Amino acid sequence: MTDAGSRWARREDLALLTDFYELTMMSGYWRTGRQQLTASFEYFFRELPAHTGFAIAAGLEQLLDLVENLHFTADDLSYLASLDTFDSGFIDYLHTFRPTVSIDAVPEGTVVFPNEPLLRIEGPLAEAQLLETAVLNALNYPTLIATKMARIRLAAEDDRVLEFGLRRAQGPDGGLSGSRAAHIGGADATSNVLAGKLFGIPVSGTHAHSWVMSFEDELTAFRAYADIYPDNCVLLVDTYDTLTSGLPNALRVFEELRERRPGVRAAIRLDSGDLARLSKAAYALFTDAGFDDPLIVASNELDEDLMADLKRQGARINAWGVGTHLITSSSWPALGGVYKLTAAHEEGERPGPGAADADPTREPGTWEPRIKLSSNPAKMTDPGRKRVVRYRDARGRPVGDVLYCADEEPRRGPQVPYVSRGDLSFQVGLEEVAGSEDLLRPVVREGRRISPSPPLTEVRRRAADEVASLPEELRRLRNPEIYHVGLSPRLAELKSDLIRRAPGVLR
Amino acid sequence: MTDAGSRWARREDLALLTDFYELTMMSGYWRTGRQQLTASFEYFFRELPAHTGFAIAAGLEQLLDLVENLHFTADDLSYLASLDTFDSGFIDYLHTFRPTVSIDAVPEGTVVFPNEPLLRIEGPLAEAQLLETAVLNALNYPTLIATKMARIRLAAEDDRVLEFGLRRAQGPDGGLSGSRAAHIGGADATSNVLAGKLFGIPVSGTHAHSWVMSFEDELTAFRAYADIYPDNCVLLVDTYDTLTSGLPNALRVFEELRERRPGVRAAIRLDSGDLARLSKAAYALFTDAGFDDPLIVASNELDEDLMADLKRQGARINAWGVGTHLITSSSWPALGGVYKLTAAHEEGERPGPGAADADPTREPGTWEPRIKLSSNPAKMTDPGRKRVVRYRDARGRPVGDVLYCADEEPRRGPQVPYVSRGDLSFQVGLEEVAGSEDLLRPVVREGRRISPSPPLTEVRRRAADEVASLPEELRRLRNPEIYHVGLSPRLAELKSDLIRRAPGVLR
Repeated sequence: MTDAGSRWARREDLALLTDFYELTMMSGYWRTGRQQLTASFEYFFRELPAHTGFAIAAGLEQLLDLVENLHFTADDLSYLASLDTFDSGFIDYLHTFRPTVSIDAVPEGTVVFPNEPLLRIEGPLAEAQLLETAVLNALNYPTLIATKMARIRLAAEDDRVLEFGLRRAQGPDGGLSGSRAAHIGGADATSNVLAGKLFGIPVSGTHAHSWVMSFEDELTAFRAYADIYPDNCVLLVDTYDTLTSGLPNALRVFEELRERRPGVRAAIRLDSGDLARLSKAAYALFTDAGFDDPLIVASNELDEDLMADLKRQGARINAWGVGTHLITSSSWPALGGVYKLTAAHEEGERPGPGAADADPTREPGTWEPRIKLSSNPAKMTDPGRKRVVRYRDARGRPVGDVLYCADEEPRRGPQVPYVSRGDLSFQVGLEEVAGSEDLLRPVVREGRRISPSPPLTEVRRRAADEVASLPEELRRLRNPEIYHVGLSPRLAELKSDLIRRAPGVLR
Repeated sequence: MTDAGSRWARREDLALLTDFYELTMMSGYWRTGRQQLTASFEYFFRELPAHTGFAIAAGLEQLLDLVENLHFTADDLSYLASLDTFDSGFIDYLHTFRPTVSIDAVPEGTVVFPNEPLLRIEGPLAEAQLLETAVLNALNYPTLIATKMARIRLAAEDDRVLEFGLRRAQGPDGGLSGSRAAHIGGADATSNVLAGKLFGIPVSGTHAHSWVMSFEDELTAFRAYADIYPDNCVLLVDTYDTLTSGLPNALRVFEELRERRPGVRAAIRLDSGDLARLSKAAYALFTDAGFDDPLIVASNELDEDLMADLKRQGARINAWGVGTHLITSSSWPALGGVYKLTAAHEEGERPGPGAADADPTREPGTWEPRIKLSSNPAKMTDPGRKRVVRYRDARGRPVGDVLYCADEEPRRGPQVPYVSRGDLSFQVGLEEVAGSEDLLRPVVREGRRISPSPPLTEVRRRAADEVASLPEELRRLRNPEIYHVGLSPRLAELKSDLIRRAPGVLR
């Protein structure tokens, strides 16, 4: 193994997977004696992808693994020492560093919306700061992909969707994170074998053009494939010409196979050309020959818009292979999630172990709310530690989420007043509220998971149930309604106060 | 460490980082006795990102590491066996599998164009097939990002460009591959500390809004930062209000610092608002106070178009932090590189070790060219093993690339005839050719690197030199010229022949 080889192949130590400024700040906190100041940070995003009415939270599992395994190796420390930026005391501090933070988070697979905290990290300022980049790296991309896949799922209706993104992903775990997030969002299977092994996602795939090209002719290639995989034979019919070569050859092979295996399902994949026309031609060819319900897989630059349009045209496609546009979320390639300080515990004394509990009746003690101002009001953060409460109507459909101060008792309904984030002077209300739940749940205390993570199948089922529970208006592929995420009147008052007291033109 | 933790944290074994169909095909080749058929595959892309006149090859290093380390672990094999798809003979074959392929490739950092092979893999069909996904995963994304960065470099002119993409990348090595590729494409530094450690890229970064928010007030926060990092003090001035708070506080701190460190360079970062107006205001403030040439870093959703527009407005920015739009190549989020079979060696007997050498005089023996047809002529592959020759004019500027049959002697100039890929009946020519070089170089024989990889600094220098050598018309950010990539008359004739002989409507 070359030196370079060992660099790329090992990936056990991710403490340095962070932006340099996290370390300069951390060192700064340490040098100024602030490393034990307790801080509360929140992760949220401000904007949904275009045309998208909801998002699906994903990526928490990766983050928790990273936190539990976080430590600086001797190698890491000698690299940091070589940068002539940090003094040896700080390097020594990092040597024994292990996270002791508390984390509360929305479970993976939950439907979420802009401007609500999806994760809260509390603990020593230096630690919570260090984790910023890891949080953003772990959550932004999977949440984006689970969300994109949920839209593709809506367009596919009840058809199978296969995720084929690995070849267009950002390196190995672009593909891995993407496959996992796509499965959460509703993909039935992945082409990525490593994702299959690591996460238990069903794997899928048959053959490529090269299979056909490696044989003397297409018919021989199809026959060979059918001989080897009689029970999972999906023939790719566009290596030469779909209508005059691929489909007739495929029909012949399935007719031969039917003699040996009565009831075999004819199955082809279309990877180019006019998918609407070709799928109808294929369907007619196979049904005329007595093959009921042929499996017609389509691939080639598919996304939810093209899929919806193919459905509209009556295309006879019943399985969809989606690669590039899913794995890159090409229509909106980044979720702009951010991680902001919302409160700090000034005394330098850490609150007890119960401090970060979701228990709303707990006295918040000496937490001081913090705010990030901006000339753009939408970018001003919501200050203070919070509870996020989801309200549902009698049919279980979400009607709105309200952010409360952590020590505030949420209203129960049927009417729930809230203040719009867009205009703090404007109080409105949710109507017909029949139930509510807290979205943030405790997941890590003292740097360790407090319970095992749910299996991926459960996360995937949650996502499907949550999407199904949404009002139809939020599930549109174009011009969805905007879901209500508001502030409790008390939180709005706190925010107004802090804005008034802040430095700058805003006074 | 939890079970899930160990899954995410280790990454030594990437043999299964492949699409499932590579394995079903491989097993099929094995079952039909074709696993020792020798094949020649090429990687190329068909289309440049929008508005882009050239690309920069990157990612080869990652691929070579993957190939050299490729093996199936006992874990991998028991997973594969559990899928009820493969027979035990094939699993046994994988147990001892190690790549024995030959690879020829364009060096990283080379300027490249659509439809020319950037990589050739030759060896047993089953092996070369298995590597398809790894090739695409390793090369597509880095090439895309090096190319995007080269455009950002052009817009930045001689200013420093800092890559800040980790938080919007696809998981850990989305960020790592992205940082490395961005450095090749011209980024001066990265925020990604792990990329700094692994690849020796300079790291950069100072503080975030949270630093300011963790102190009682902005002035105290700035003073603390300047005390700790007097020699690398870049103050982020937009936590509260840039004009009325951030800039005056920063000026005060730099004036205090100047008393202790005469000649200190004032340095700020703008992360929101009107970057043109604010940068001019900052420049005036600092120069009026006697700070020459203040460092003004800008960040916030920058890309090459916005940077060019800020330059046009005379913005006083002299360093640029580019994150989301670089790391996702948001304007064109995937390079559609493909990997196609171009020739096969029918006898089942492997050519000798010299077979894949770039030596053009070598008898190609029994290689049989293969072609992938399509109703879209642009998607028909160029058949056969090839040489890729770049021609330059007397000033060293590339004037066109011509693909030759591997055993063909390239023309030398001053005129070089070629056939356009768009119309095989149409012969044209390059003029004023003064030099030429082969782009594909041998890098792997029998599955091992044949020489050490060049250091990243050398790769980066090559990319800069190559971009500088391009005609200005190719370096435009809008409507660049289209570079000539043609076929030698003999290769064009071979392609026409194969199309005529192929099955389907095309006869």
